[in-house]
Amino acid sequence: MSSETLALAKDLIARHSVTPEDAGCQALMAERLGAVGFDNESLRFEDVDNLWSVHGQGGPLLVFAGHTDVVPTGDEKHWTFPPFEPTEHEGMLFGRGAADMKGSLAAMVVAAERFAKAHPNHRGRLAFLITSDEEGDAYNGTVRVVETLTERGEQIDWAVVGEPSSTNKVGDVIKNGRRGSMLGYLTIKGVQGHVAYPHLAKNPVHLVAPAIAALSTEVWDEGNDFFPATSFQISNINSGTGATNVIPGEAHIGFSFRFSTEVTAEELQRRTRVLLDQHGFDYELRFEVKGQPFLTERGALVQAATQAVEQVQGHATELSTAGGTSDGRFIAPTGAQVVELGPVNATIHKVNECVAIDDLDRLTEMYFAIMESLLVD
Amino acid sequence: MSSETLALAKDLIARHSVTPEDAGCQALMAERLGAVGFDNESLRFEDVDNLWSVHGQGGPLLVFAGHTDVVPTGDEKHWTFPPFEPTEHEGMLFGRGAADMKGSLAAMVVAAERFAKAHPNHRGRLAFLITSDEEGDAYNGTVRVVETLTERGEQIDWAVVGEPSSTNKVGDVIKNGRRGSMLGYLTIKGVQGHVAYPHLAKNPVHLVAPAIAALSTEVWDEGNDFFPATSFQISNINSGTGATNVIPGEAHIGFSFRFSTEVTAEELQRRTRVLLDQHGFDYELRFEVKGQPFLTERGALVQAATQAVEQVQGHATELSTAGGTSDGRFIAPTGAQVVELGPVNATIHKVNECVAIDDLDRLTEMYFAIMESLLVD
Repeated sequence: MSSETLALAKDLIARHSVTPEDAGCQALMAERLGAVGFDNESLRFEDVDNLWSVHGQGGPLLVFAGHTDVVPTGDEKHWTFPPFEPTEHEGMLFGRGAADMKGSLAAMVVAAERFAKAHPNHRGRLAFLITSDEEGDAYNGTVRVVETLTERGEQIDWAVVGEPSSTNKVGDVIKNGRRGSMLGYLTIKGVQGHVAYPHLAKNPVHLVAPAIAALSTEVWDEGNDFFPATSFQISNINSGTGATNVIPGEAHIGFSFRFSTEVTAEELQRRTRVLLDQHGFDYELRFEVKGQPFLTERGALVQAATQAVEQVQGHATELSTAGGTSDGRFIAPTGAQVVELGPVNATIHKVNECVAIDDLDRLTEMYFAIMESLLVD
Repeated sequence: MSSETLALAKDLIARHSVTPEDAGCQALMAERLGAVGFDNESLRFEDVDNLWSVHGQGGPLLVFAGHTDVVPTGDEKHWTFPPFEPTEHEGMLFGRGAADMKGSLAAMVVAAERFAKAHPNHRGRLAFLITSDEEGDAYNGTVRVVETLTERGEQIDWAVVGEPSSTNKVGDVIKNGRRGSMLGYLTIKGVQGHVAYPHLAKNPVHLVAPAIAALSTEVWDEGNDFFPATSFQISNINSGTGATNVIPGEAHIGFSFRFSTEVTAEELQRRTRVLLDQHGFDYELRFEVKGQPFLTERGALVQAATQAVEQVQGHATELSTAGGTSDGRFIAPTGAQVVELGPVNATIHKVNECVAIDDLDRLTEMYFAIMESLLVD
């Protein structure tokens, strides 16, 4: 069993699927799933390959979701082993995508193969929702597949996203939600002038400084049992012509909210404007909501996932909503319960990305246990 | 008389002396001055031509100072007349340097010619200190000539700088001092991180915002009878990688002080550091003093200059220390009295730079009157 997940993970890593390329990963998965009775459907939107693969009939519907695309390698000279030549070394499997998330995909497929053989007439349906555009724009990936399913009247009951959720060993953290994410683009309008004649100018950096101080110390909420407090961070600020004797005419600020379920994007936008308006300067402000927050409270899916971890690892797991966004944000708004369970994320998006080989087998067992828990009476 | 100053101004404008080029301007001036008995000395430092030309013997020493270099023209397509083809149009003389300051140079030379002929045995010495590096780095221009004179034990008593000091008509403003000028370069050191994990990062923009607010509202002094209050202006701020999900590790700020004689550069540096230290972040700070403030109080030179204006224009003039820096900042520290008196500055450094042709003759008369007032008993 060990060799199966490892072998498939290596086969996937060897395919150069830098986002949004799929590079044949989905065809390989579809072939494996088709051989055990899954119905495969390719859903290509623009330049993005997506796979929707289903086993069984009727409800409930349990979906394993993930992505075949990987982030770029950066300079390959910095890698100890070539990033697309999967290499076993001291108990670890090295390669781009090993942890994010071709290891998870291999575990899902191998678990599904075992499950379909063990329970050919399980209740409901077991499905795979796989995209090749999670690391990129994400416009033509999971969001489009979910739209298509919704148009068909399909309701996902439970979704397990294979994102690398773990901190030290596989399963020690399950994500049962994610914060919302919103960007803001602020332009402060002053009046350009010469530093020798400040009375003829209005310095936008001076104007905005107290507003930045206020925004960065504002308590947006206190968070709740599942979410840390909403946070505001300036990511970029630029003002000035480069000349040392010119008072700039405008200042440009980019900022980011990560927000809990205690506030809404609209409320944060309104409060941001109220706060800026208190400082008496002209500005333009544009927001971009990248993802609404979601939360899957304790229920059938969370119980199945936590029990699966405890059964395989012999200890309890932690539920968390910390960290960045994932495609779970596109599935949760349909009303589905969503959790993320995958390998240790310490090396993702870095050089020498790797995953513990033992963890691949344990993850396979966890996924198998979740399938049994939810689809076998 | 009219034709003399206008003709010489045109002859100077026709020479393409974009900083630090002199393009033969000083040779032309030296030829004219030599013909009426001036002793010419070329002082070339690095790539900069300077002219020191003296008429008479002993003290006191009255210097007319100026520069032959001009700022670049920008795109010549935006000029109504070619910038190096001096053109008379509706009572104005157009061309790069017409106001800053080849018109003044022509007026000085013509006034000196008349003066040397009228008063061949005047008391003391009349001298010209001309550089071709006022608009550029200014490292090898007036500052080096003054150093050379100081090494020789020469003491300038009075200096008239031909900078365009006037606002509406020639002589309406005489500058009898200039504010000090100092640049600051501040780097705030935070800790870079992901916006999703703000507790692992320290945002330098958030850290510095209250310090900017404090610096920009600080009352550095109240100014005095001759100087407006000291001003602080941020000219440039930059922070961020461009990515929207990264908390920047550093922020970079450039700022400028224009300061009165009520504070010193050292005091401003100390107070800036005290203020920054109150906000509890790591930073690096470097200052660059571009010019100490100077003030020429009422005395023989100010009296001679104001009387000259009143005599020519029939009305009083205004003494001012406003505006940018000039080479007066290098002469004043030797203990010399320094004033700036020149044409209207409305078009300097702009396209279609021009000077009123009448003003050239009036300026010639003013300079002549100053020479008579100070060097004829």
